[in-house]
Amino acid sequence: MNAAAETELVEELLAGKHRALARVISKVEDREPGYRDIVSALHEHTGTADVIGVTGSPGAGKSTLVDKLAAHYRERGETVGVIAVDPSSPYTGGAVLGDRIRMASNVGDMDVFFRSMSARGTLGGLSTATADAVKALDAFGKDRIIIETVGAGQNEVDIVRTADTVCVLVQPGSGDDVQMLKAGILEIGDLFVVNKADMDGATRTVADLEEMLHMERDPTAKLNTGGFDAPEHPDSGDGADADGSASIWEPKVLETVAKSGEGVEELIDTLDAHSAWLDETGRREAKAKQRYAAEIRQLLRADAAELVEGELARRGGVEEMAERVHERETDPYTVADDVLGPIEECVEQERE
Amino acid sequence: MNAAAETELVEELLAGKHRALARVISKVEDREPGYRDIVSALHEHTGTADVIGVTGSPGAGKSTLVDKLAAHYRERGETVGVIAVDPSSPYTGGAVLGDRIRMASNVGDMDVFFRSMSARGTLGGLSTATADAVKALDAFGKDRIIIETVGAGQNEVDIVRTADTVCVLVQPGSGDDVQMLKAGILEIGDLFVVNKADMDGATRTVADLEEMLHMERDPTAKLNTGGFDAPEHPDSGDGADADGSASIWEPKVLETVAKSGEGVEELIDTLDAHSAWLDETGRREAKAKQRYAAEIRQLLRADAAELVEGELARRGGVEEMAERVHERETDPYTVADDVLGPIEECVEQERE
Repeated sequence: MNAAAETELVEELLAGKHRALARVISKVEDREPGYRDIVSALHEHTGTADVIGVTGSPGAGKSTLVDKLAAHYRERGETVGVIAVDPSSPYTGGAVLGDRIRMASNVGDMDVFFRSMSARGTLGGLSTATADAVKALDAFGKDRIIIETVGAGQNEVDIVRTADTVCVLVQPGSGDDVQMLKAGILEIGDLFVVNKADMDGATRTVADLEEMLHMERDPTAKLNTGGFDAPEHPDSGDGADADGSASIWEPKVLETVAKSGEGVEELIDTLDAHSAWLDETGRREAKAKQRYAAEIRQLLRADAAELVEGELARRGGVEEMAERVHERETDPYTVADDVLGPIEECVEQERE
Repeated sequence: MNAAAETELVEELLAGKHRALARVISKVEDREPGYRDIVSALHEHTGTADVIGVTGSPGAGKSTLVDKLAAHYRERGETVGVIAVDPSSPYTGGAVLGDRIRMASNVGDMDVFFRSMSARGTLGGLSTATADAVKALDAFGKDRIIIETVGAGQNEVDIVRTADTVCVLVQPGSGDDVQMLKAGILEIGDLFVVNKADMDGATRTVADLEEMLHMERDPTAKLNTGGFDAPEHPDSGDGADADGSASIWEPKVLETVAKSGEGVEELIDTLDAHSAWLDETGRREAKAKQRYAAEIRQLLRADAAELVEGELARRGGVEEMAERVHERETDPYTVADDVLGPIEECVEQERE
């Protein structure tokens, strides 16, 4: 694909053509030649969508809930895009091709994309590709973008960080979820939804979550109420306190029965409240900047790793070096210095 | 520390001074200036130790079992070193300093080191530092080195790969362990030990493990018994079959009660059998080479990431770039190209 064709594709996407959107997302996902230029070109048209991450273990009812959320938004006249990084998602029309699940269903204004799992294992490949797909949907003009992931492992945590609002689904009585929460999900959730709230143990799960969240936020709570570390004149902190209560989002625990739609309206209200809070406090902007910084780092690391792989190949391959290390002719640190030394010198000279 | 002092420290370690060993491991762990030269200097003296990785969730009884194993080896007249990457290990004399646990106990010929968890989160930092500590113990002349880790997450899997033999501890009836096994531990275990085998559910856990292992190895099993893909004249494969059965290690499931010492002797025998198998089949050498290749890659990636960080800092910092990306003056891919482009050009010119 040449530059002219890329430009045309971008223009078609910006003009609202669903086919162009699907092609761009495919290209981004497969890291096809030219995808970088396409994402670069789209960037200036992004920044208006509200991105919601929905995470939770398989069986928690993510896709049912996402369906309901999308329906609500569309009733309001908003456009919705869904990226499901979950091979078990039962969206209508999904096609399973080995471990690659891919399809684009386009019902009215709702586009649903399944991220293939093939980028897994590469250095942050999956989260970078997901972030790029979000940009495509954003530039296309989607009002709401929902990212659905299975909440397990660093990869998923990285993906869900792409969202402005993170919604964690928990199934009543599943120890599985406690494990998941331990894995760092507790820290990143803005909303916790106990779905299938008609199941036994739902009340207990809500209480457990609230306790865990309380413990999690305890240090902050202590700071605000003033303990040993409180300022000498706590009275003088009035303004800061008023400010403080507005600038901290207390994670909410909600109950839903996604299948029947019970509690979904309240969930939408809370998502709206979080979205408004993000705007009012400047947190949306701050989060976006943090995300861009992380993206830049991630891209540079991946690119640098590629450069290093090229150098290794040019020098006869890493296996030959390992052989020499095994023969005690050299050692890993010396090899690393040999390979990277000339590159570092190059950079030094450049800087002078 | 200057080069002469480093040389002296290495010489003292090689002369069998425990204090020097402890200092080297501290330096390696803290990535103190000069640690690379020290590890480089030690490398040629390594390659004689047998490294055993013991992994399992907290409460599985790892440290009790490691204690028993070490005692057995020492009774035989072998020297033992232990590296515990597990903050909950209750070795005598352990001191808890925030999230950093560190001590070196030295009972007779057994040195026990606790890896601090501070290297966590850095690009493979924890596994690289652990590999370096293993080298120090190896060069010191330890016959057996035991690495103890909590078997959860990629970090731990990477660490345990440093071992020649991987021993996975499972506690009867803990769903936790099934989770752990799902996380990729099943593939890397050479021995599975159902510890606390006097507990309810031990027989069931053994059966479950054996079934999981059978399913895991099934494709190979089918290949060996000859199915649709079998050679046309299976008789001609006799020699290969005999060869094949020797070159494949069938993971074993054992039962122990570490506290009372029950089953420990059988475990030692199986560890010895695996060690002998590694030598006879050339697998120890092959594994070592794979490990060196992985180490080289890991070091280069970390070094390249550092180089990139330096470039980012020199160009005003990643935050400023994120700001410009947020203002839509540029985008992450363009920033990455700007930063890495000159380095790539440099490398190109070097190659010519």
